[in-house]
Amino acid sequence: MTILESRIAAEGNAERGGTGAFPGRKVILGKDQPLRLDSGVLLPAFPVAYQTYGRLNDEGSNAVYICHALTGDQFVAEPHPVTGKPGWWNIMVGPGKPLDTDRFFVICANILGGCMGTAGPTETNPATGKPWGLDFPVFTIGDMVRVQAMLLDHLGIEQLFLAVGGSLGGMQVLQWVASYPERVFAAVPIACAARCSSQNIALHEVGRQAVMADPDWCGGDYLSQGKQPRRGLAVARMGAHITYLSEQALHRKFGRRLQDREAVTYGFEADFQVESYLRHQGISFVDRFDANSFLYITRAMDYFDLEAEYGGVLASAFQDTKTRFCVFSFTSDWLFSTEENRMIVKALNAAAANVSFAEIETDSGHDSFLQNVPEFHRVLNGFIAGAAEHRGLPRSGLG
Amino acid sequence: MTILESRIAAEGNAERGGTGAFPGRKVILGKDQPLRLDSGVLLPAFPVAYQTYGRLNDEGSNAVYICHALTGDQFVAEPHPVTGKPGWWNIMVGPGKPLDTDRFFVICANILGGCMGTAGPTETNPATGKPWGLDFPVFTIGDMVRVQAMLLDHLGIEQLFLAVGGSLGGMQVLQWVASYPERVFAAVPIACAARCSSQNIALHEVGRQAVMADPDWCGGDYLSQGKQPRRGLAVARMGAHITYLSEQALHRKFGRRLQDREAVTYGFEADFQVESYLRHQGISFVDRFDANSFLYITRAMDYFDLEAEYGGVLASAFQDTKTRFCVFSFTSDWLFSTEENRMIVKALNAAAANVSFAEIETDSGHDSFLQNVPEFHRVLNGFIAGAAEHRGLPRSGLG
Repeated sequence: MTILESRIAAEGNAERGGTGAFPGRKVILGKDQPLRLDSGVLLPAFPVAYQTYGRLNDEGSNAVYICHALTGDQFVAEPHPVTGKPGWWNIMVGPGKPLDTDRFFVICANILGGCMGTAGPTETNPATGKPWGLDFPVFTIGDMVRVQAMLLDHLGIEQLFLAVGGSLGGMQVLQWVASYPERVFAAVPIACAARCSSQNIALHEVGRQAVMADPDWCGGDYLSQGKQPRRGLAVARMGAHITYLSEQALHRKFGRRLQDREAVTYGFEADFQVESYLRHQGISFVDRFDANSFLYITRAMDYFDLEAEYGGVLASAFQDTKTRFCVFSFTSDWLFSTEENRMIVKALNAAAANVSFAEIETDSGHDSFLQNVPEFHRVLNGFIAGAAEHRGLPRSGLG
Repeated sequence: MTILESRIAAEGNAERGGTGAFPGRKVILGKDQPLRLDSGVLLPAFPVAYQTYGRLNDEGSNAVYICHALTGDQFVAEPHPVTGKPGWWNIMVGPGKPLDTDRFFVICANILGGCMGTAGPTETNPATGKPWGLDFPVFTIGDMVRVQAMLLDHLGIEQLFLAVGGSLGGMQVLQWVASYPERVFAAVPIACAARCSSQNIALHEVGRQAVMADPDWCGGDYLSQGKQPRRGLAVARMGAHITYLSEQALHRKFGRRLQDREAVTYGFEADFQVESYLRHQGISFVDRFDANSFLYITRAMDYFDLEAEYGGVLASAFQDTKTRFCVFSFTSDWLFSTEENRMIVKALNAAAANVSFAEIETDSGHDSFLQNVPEFHRVLNGFIAGAAEHRGLPRSGLG
C-alpha cells in the first residue's frame, strides 16, 4: 500500500451533511488557513468528498481529474449511494473504457457547493452548528477549481495527465488550465462555453425562482426548519431537463405518444409520455439533490466569464499554455452550442495552443456527453492515446 | 348605422369575470342550444368578448379575423384596459397598416378559455354562481374556432376575407380552414405548427407544474378562496418568455450586462439585466392573466394535432381547399421552427393548395410576429394586396 493509498483508505466513510451516512472518502481542507474565495469571503476549514478509481503510478503521471456537471457528483463509476443507480459516467470510466482505470488514476470530488459531502449550503456551519443555508458564501467556478487544486496538493499530485468534463464540468476544465497552466497536461472540455450566455443565465434564473417561490424553501432555511422545497425544485429540474435534450431527441423518445391510455383524458393528468417522463425526472431529482445547492451552483455558472476575467481577451486565459486540448461539441446541443465551443477553439488557436476540435453529429442534445455516442468515444480514445504517448505513459497498465 | 353596427354598439361595455368592469363588447352565444365540445361535454350559454376595428363593407367581403396567441386578447389595436399599454398588434392593425382598418373590418375575440371576458375558468359557472375554476371543461383549438364561427354567424358574416394569427393564433388559422373550408378566402398562419411537438408539450407541462406547485393555486379554486397563485404563474411566464426570444436576441438585448451595478454582488439579487427583465415579465404578467386560463389554453395547444385529426394525413385537412395561403416562419424561432412550418406548406402543396411560403430572416425569435420586422410586413402587404384583388376588393377604402 502506497502512502497515497493509505491516506485515501483512511478517508473512507464520509457523512452526508444533514441526510445521514453514505459511503465515500472525505478530507478536511483549509485547516492551516482559510480559503479566500473570489468574493473576498474566507471559508474556514471545510470538507471535500471524493472518489477515486484505479491506481496512481510511481511517477504520479497518470492522474485523470473528472469535473462533474451541475447535478453530478463524485460517484462516477459505482452505484450512487442515495439512488442505487449506476455511476453517471460508467460508460466512460472503467477497465478498457476511454478513461481506463487499468491505466489511469481517476479522481472526482463533489464540487464546492454540492450536496454530497463537500462544503456547501447543506453542510454544517462551524460558527452556528446548523446547516449553512444561505449563509454559505456565494462562490465561483474559480473557487471550485481552487478547492480541487487543494485536494490534489493533499493527495500529493503535482500535475494531472488529464482534466475532463462536460457542461459545467467543461467550464471547470477551462478554468483549471487558466488558473493552473502547469498542472494540466491534457484537457478535454466537452459541450461547454467560456462564459454563460444571456440565455443560460435566463434559464438558471427561472429555475432559481421556481425554488424560491416554494414556501417550503423558507428563505433558504428549510433544513433547520425540517422542510424541503420539493415542488419548487422539481419544477426547476423539469425545466432544466428539457434543455439537456434536443427537440429531435424528445421527438424520437416520446413524440406525441400517450402514457398508458388510448385517448386523451381532457384533463391535466400526464396524458403524454413526455409529461410522465418529466414529472418522474422532477420527483426523483428532489430525492438526491439539494435546492440551495441548485441555487449556488447555477449562480457560479452565471458568473463564469473567462474572457472578462482575462482582460476581455479570451486567448489571454490560455497564454503560453503547453496543455494539449481536445474540445467537443454536439450538433444538437442548443444549451452550449457548437458556436460557443468554437469560440473556445478560436481563442486557443489565437494562443497558439495545441488543440483539436470535434463537432460530433448526434441528435441527443447537450446530454450526449453522458450517452453512448460512438463517434465521441472514438475521437476521445484517439486523443487520449496520443496524449498518453506524448506524456510517456505505457500503452496499457501502469508500466 | 348598419344593422351590424347597431348590434355591435349594443354589446358594448362587457364585464370582466371576477375582476371588475372593463370596456369592450360581449355577446352571449349558445343560448338556443349548448355547444358540444370535442370532449363531448356540453357548454351552456356562454359569453364571448370581442373587439372590432374598421367597417364591414356592403358585400360583407372585407372581414379579417385575428386569432390571438396564448397570452393575447381582443385588445389588438387599442390600449389594454388592464395594463394601459398599447394594443398588442398596433404595429399591424390600423389605417394604412398591413391590416388596414380603412379597408378591412377587423375582428378579434378573446379565445375560449381566455380571461378577458370570453367563457373560461374565471367566468361564472351558471350552475353554481361561482367561478368555474377547474370545473370548466377542457377544450381544444377546434372548440376555440367553433366559438369564433358562432360569433361570425351572430355578426352575419358568411366568409372571412382573411384569417390571420401567430403562434397559437396560427394554429387556429389552420383549424379554421380545416373546419370551415368555405368560410376563409385567405389564410395567414404565422410561426406555428400543425401539431404541438414533444418539446412544446414538455415546455407547457413545466409551466403548468409551476402554477400547480403554488399553494395559492388551491387546487384550482383560488378565485373562490380570494387567492392568486402569483409566484407560480410568474415562474411559468418567465420560462415561457425565454422560448419566445432567440438566444441571439437575448444576447443583443442583454448580453451579460449588469443591472444598475458595477460588479456582481455574490448573491441572488438580479445582478444581470436579463434576470431583472425576466422578473419584470413574470410579475407584470400576473396582473393581467389568469393562472387557470394558462393551464387550459396550453392544454388545448398540447392536444392540437391536425394530422391525427385527419386520419394521419395532414394534407387531408386541406383537401380541395380554395383558400389562398401565405405561411410565415422566422429563422431564429426555435419554438415553432421553419421546419414545422415547412410541414404545413408541404401538406398544402400535397393538397394542391394555393400557397406562398416566406421564411423571414431575423434574429428576433418566435416573437418576431409581434415586432417591427420590415421584410415580414412587406411580404404580408404583398400577399394581402394580391388576395384582395382576387377577392375583388377595391384598392383603398370600402368601395
